[in-house]
Amino acid sequence: MPEIDGPRLLDDLHALRQFGATGTGVVRPTLSDVDMESRRWLCDRMTAAGLDATIDGAANVIGRSPNPGPALVVGSHSDTQPTGGWLDGALGVIYGLEVARALLEDPATAHLAVDAVAWSDEEGTYTSCLGSTSWCGELTDEILASTNDSGESVAEALHRAGLSEVPRIELDRERHIGYLEAHIEQGPHLEDAELKIGVVTSIVGIRGMIVEFAGEQNHAGTTPMKRRRDAGVALFDFAAQARHRISAVASSSTVWTFGDARLHPGAQSIIPGRAELICQWRDPDDAVLDSIEAEVRELAGEMTAAGPVDVDCRPTRDPIRPTVMNSDFQSSISTAAEAHVPGRWQAMPSAAGHDPMVISRHLPCGMLFIPSIGGVSHDFAEDSHPDDIVLGCQVLADATSAILSRAS
Amino acid sequence: MPEIDGPRLLDDLHALRQFGATGTGVVRPTLSDVDMESRRWLCDRMTAAGLDATIDGAANVIGRSPNPGPALVVGSHSDTQPTGGWLDGALGVIYGLEVARALLEDPATAHLAVDAVAWSDEEGTYTSCLGSTSWCGELTDEILASTNDSGESVAEALHRAGLSEVPRIELDRERHIGYLEAHIEQGPHLEDAELKIGVVTSIVGIRGMIVEFAGEQNHAGTTPMKRRRDAGVALFDFAAQARHRISAVASSSTVWTFGDARLHPGAQSIIPGRAELICQWRDPDDAVLDSIEAEVRELAGEMTAAGPVDVDCRPTRDPIRPTVMNSDFQSSISTAAEAHVPGRWQAMPSAAGHDPMVISRHLPCGMLFIPSIGGVSHDFAEDSHPDDIVLGCQVLADATSAILSRAS
Repeated sequence: MPEIDGPRLLDDLHALRQFGATGTGVVRPTLSDVDMESRRWLCDRMTAAGLDATIDGAANVIGRSPNPGPALVVGSHSDTQPTGGWLDGALGVIYGLEVARALLEDPATAHLAVDAVAWSDEEGTYTSCLGSTSWCGELTDEILASTNDSGESVAEALHRAGLSEVPRIELDRERHIGYLEAHIEQGPHLEDAELKIGVVTSIVGIRGMIVEFAGEQNHAGTTPMKRRRDAGVALFDFAAQARHRISAVASSSTVWTFGDARLHPGAQSIIPGRAELICQWRDPDDAVLDSIEAEVRELAGEMTAAGPVDVDCRPTRDPIRPTVMNSDFQSSISTAAEAHVPGRWQAMPSAAGHDPMVISRHLPCGMLFIPSIGGVSHDFAEDSHPDDIVLGCQVLADATSAILSRAS
Repeated sequence: MPEIDGPRLLDDLHALRQFGATGTGVVRPTLSDVDMESRRWLCDRMTAAGLDATIDGAANVIGRSPNPGPALVVGSHSDTQPTGGWLDGALGVIYGLEVARALLEDPATAHLAVDAVAWSDEEGTYTSCLGSTSWCGELTDEILASTNDSGESVAEALHRAGLSEVPRIELDRERHIGYLEAHIEQGPHLEDAELKIGVVTSIVGIRGMIVEFAGEQNHAGTTPMKRRRDAGVALFDFAAQARHRISAVASSSTVWTFGDARLHPGAQSIIPGRAELICQWRDPDDAVLDSIEAEVRELAGEMTAAGPVDVDCRPTRDPIRPTVMNSDFQSSISTAAEAHVPGRWQAMPSAAGHDPMVISRHLPCGMLFIPSIGGVSHDFAEDSHPDDIVLGCQVLADATSAILSRAS
């Protein structure tokens, strides 16, 4: 098996961290000046590793192996959240670079083809998974018209970055046999269980609903309690009941969140006439997602029938179906993990979204997780132990090598 | 007893309604151009009624009787809510004019002194009960610095209206023996019980609290349910429990409202780290207000102790103590009501605030209510039956005459 270079890996990660460094965190939103600088640096590093690297017309940095296929694409996204951590995305990008490099340097694997990649805008500054969507040939005019918080569209941002005339590179079905991505867990499961590697089984599906309560706005002093149709009280009731009903049908992997509640008009002396509750739930199993949705809809119907407030609900987004990882890739990652840290890895779903949600519609995908300190992510405090970072990359290199060797 | 002129009363009410008329409602916020026009019209009508009328330096319209004291001040406020009804305030103002007029016209009561008044800004466009506060000598620089939604201060608005150099008229302790105000009920109690007059016993006290929930903001996908410190869920729990605990100690007159709930940051995919619940309760009895406050504070303490979210509460305003109406005035209004509509009146608290909350600190006060159709107020749909409007004014004239005759 090829051996990765730990110090070089950590050096490159810390070098990438400098682009947009803010305290312990990183502010490097897609297509910002500092993001483009970091992409040019990544392109140079890929070139130095012997890859044929370029920034394509969707701002993806793609480092194509000089070797013919079958090829695995290995990487992640290099953009960050508005106030992001230093490893989210960046870890998987430098892993891709290091795995490609390590395999090319080892005579036993130098013939294998690893294309390294740094996708653009996985975080959705403009639109989630922009780069992988483009690579999969799914980019539409509607997506190019998506705007950031300042109202700039993807098309305008690409023009500003000098990329509007640059060709967009798409996956090559003759060459590419799959996509591998490593990521920090962004949760506490591995750390809590003192495990070193998570082999991702699937990315959870997500459903979002807005529950709307229609009552009657009125004077908070003069309206007797019995005559009220208080949309706020109905919302609190709904939330309290929904909580128990969701728990009753949830799996051990389910998470659900009431991310926002809004009462209208929201004044001290006015009985709320309207209210909205924002609900979201995630699970690796579509059937569980269905059961929860049925409970939410049923409760809304029951409360409307009981009165005095009308309760209605509608999806806030198209459902995201669970994304299942390729089972052969899962086996290869598990085998590599067991070789390095016997018994200290586990299969687990990913509770957060990642580019494989898009790519898996076109290619088999595999993912691995390394532990996050304290489970923190999307925060300046995000971090992982250097030993865990190095181990994760070695496991990914082993798995990549094994998959490509089998396919060749 | 002097007889009021019903058609004249209704004509004047409809004439006042034209100032700021918007559909069936009225938009006449204090110190707006249309409000000042209406005040000049009111001043003319008071003058025509034989009163010595003026607009003072706080925009109050005060029509002083030509007779010596003892005098009763009778009136209400003529400003409206941002989207107000046509009777809130206006009814009591025109009642004051009509009662003063009717007493002066009747040889048996022509010697009695009724000073008619139209207060400014009871509704708090700048600051609640501005005019009555000024009349009571309680105006401070801080109050004059209060601003409307556009950032204009009271002092600036008075200057704009040409009133900054005009003297402010204050109550005359040698002359004034009390204040009477009539108002629409703004609630459904009288209509529901098919009663015609409400004799106000007290204006309810008001307590307001903000309950703050401090949890931990986190990723809605990757944070396991058991590790969450969800401030939103704690808020929903608190609201559901507080509801039952408040009901258990409330009187039949208590009303309580959760007017707003805010979850931070309020996003679909983020566990709320902080949340706030805005609570208010009203009751004519301070001891009941105390009990409810104790329940709210206890529940906050219990939830903090139980975890995982810290719950804290603090007042959002100085408590408004219940305002008790003068019992002699109550008797006079009751006697007049019983004479006109035997058995079809009741003693009752006012659940909304009124200028007597300020004035009662300086003078005995009395209030009467007439029925509101459907209990609607602070809304364009606000209305009362013409017969009820005329009856209410006659009862007020009788009571005014009786109180002044006794005092002379």
